[in-house]
Amino acid sequence: MTRGRFIAFEGGEGTGKSTQAKMLAEALAARGIDAELTREPGGTPGAEAIRALLLAPPGEGWGTPAEALLFAAARADHVARRIRPAIEGGRWIVCDRFVDSSRAYQGRAGGLGDAAVRALHEIGSGGLRPDLTVLIDVTPELAAKRLAARDGGLSDAIGGRDAEYHGQVADAFRSFAAADPAAFVVVDGAGTPEEVHKRVVTAIEPLLRDAVR
Amino acid sequence: MTRGRFIAFEGGEGTGKSTQAKMLAEALAARGIDAELTREPGGTPGAEAIRALLLAPPGEGWGTPAEALLFAAARADHVARRIRPAIEGGRWIVCDRFVDSSRAYQGRAGGLGDAAVRALHEIGSGGLRPDLTVLIDVTPELAAKRLAARDGGLSDAIGGRDAEYHGQVADAFRSFAAADPAAFVVVDGAGTPEEVHKRVVTAIEPLLRDAVR
Repeated sequence: MTRGRFIAFEGGEGTGKSTQAKMLAEALAARGIDAELTREPGGTPGAEAIRALLLAPPGEGWGTPAEALLFAAARADHVARRIRPAIEGGRWIVCDRFVDSSRAYQGRAGGLGDAAVRALHEIGSGGLRPDLTVLIDVTPELAAKRLAARDGGLSDAIGGRDAEYHGQVADAFRSFAAADPAAFVVVDGAGTPEEVHKRVVTAIEPLLRDAVR
Repeated sequence: MTRGRFIAFEGGEGTGKSTQAKMLAEALAARGIDAELTREPGGTPGAEAIRALLLAPPGEGWGTPAEALLFAAARADHVARRIRPAIEGGRWIVCDRFVDSSRAYQGRAGGLGDAAVRALHEIGSGGLRPDLTVLIDVTPELAAKRLAARDGGLSDAIGGRDAEYHGQVADAFRSFAAADPAAFVVVDGAGTPEEVHKRVVTAIEPLLRDAVR
């Protein structure tokens, strides 16, 4: 059996990556590829329970180390119970956020450092990397505009942090992609969902060619 | 202001360590020491919420890496929000379980390894160690007898594991104490709670002398 492929979407709040992950999963299915759409934190009953703690913390809110450990715990469950079995079973996984979100949010903007986040990922999930990470990149102005339109501007414990934090997140994502161009494609997130989706499909064509050969 | 002291109780299920932690906290208070009794996983609203996930896992149960990450996350919150502020404020902490439980349960019996558990503790809690760890040691037969008498033998997701697992936990605790005799006192847990308590008080006398000098 051919191993499935693992594609992650990354980007800050308001980039449109969740919409794009969903559109890609549907496009893969339309091509006859057995593809599952999932998200982080979440994707399994255990990880979804951790997600609830992360987005609405009991008590005073999590400090960065506890937050990073919780994300790594949710990811460990997601990888062990869902992502690895799917890929080994020949299915494709399209995941809205993965470890690079932890590197950007807790590692960079939260100040925990990249080595610590990578160590947690190694211990929790054997350091699993996607076959390809699609970084949806938009200007801060466009992200702010989309966020204001969504949910009447409501936000959670992480999305609601200040502009400086989110600016550091966006810079971090760009630097990860620049440092490892074989692992990332950077897609311009401006325009309609359909326009961005066409760019995503073009970007993942090499993976599709490999899969059907 | 004098820094407070941090005393942890360790041991397997049925050793009586929770009873002993409570009796010691009361004995310290009776001597005029401002002492707080707490426990792991737990001790803060965030850590208690994680405790609920650990003892009654959603889904299929946690794998060892996710379990270790959740314990480390709970500990990070407990250390940052309660243990460090107490010690720095001159108060004593008496804690039912701390990082050596993670070393024994997930590191040894769960097979994750000691280096991984120590790395999680370094990232989560800056590697904080108790001033003294009291290991309550009992024979497997006595532990089994006490467990059967407690709660009609009911148990949770971790306490309910098999005898081999709990044997490895007990061996691990003994080896930690043997490897670092300055950090541990091993107390015989056989006899009545009052008999064991006397041994505990004798064992911590050096800390009490330092505190009142």
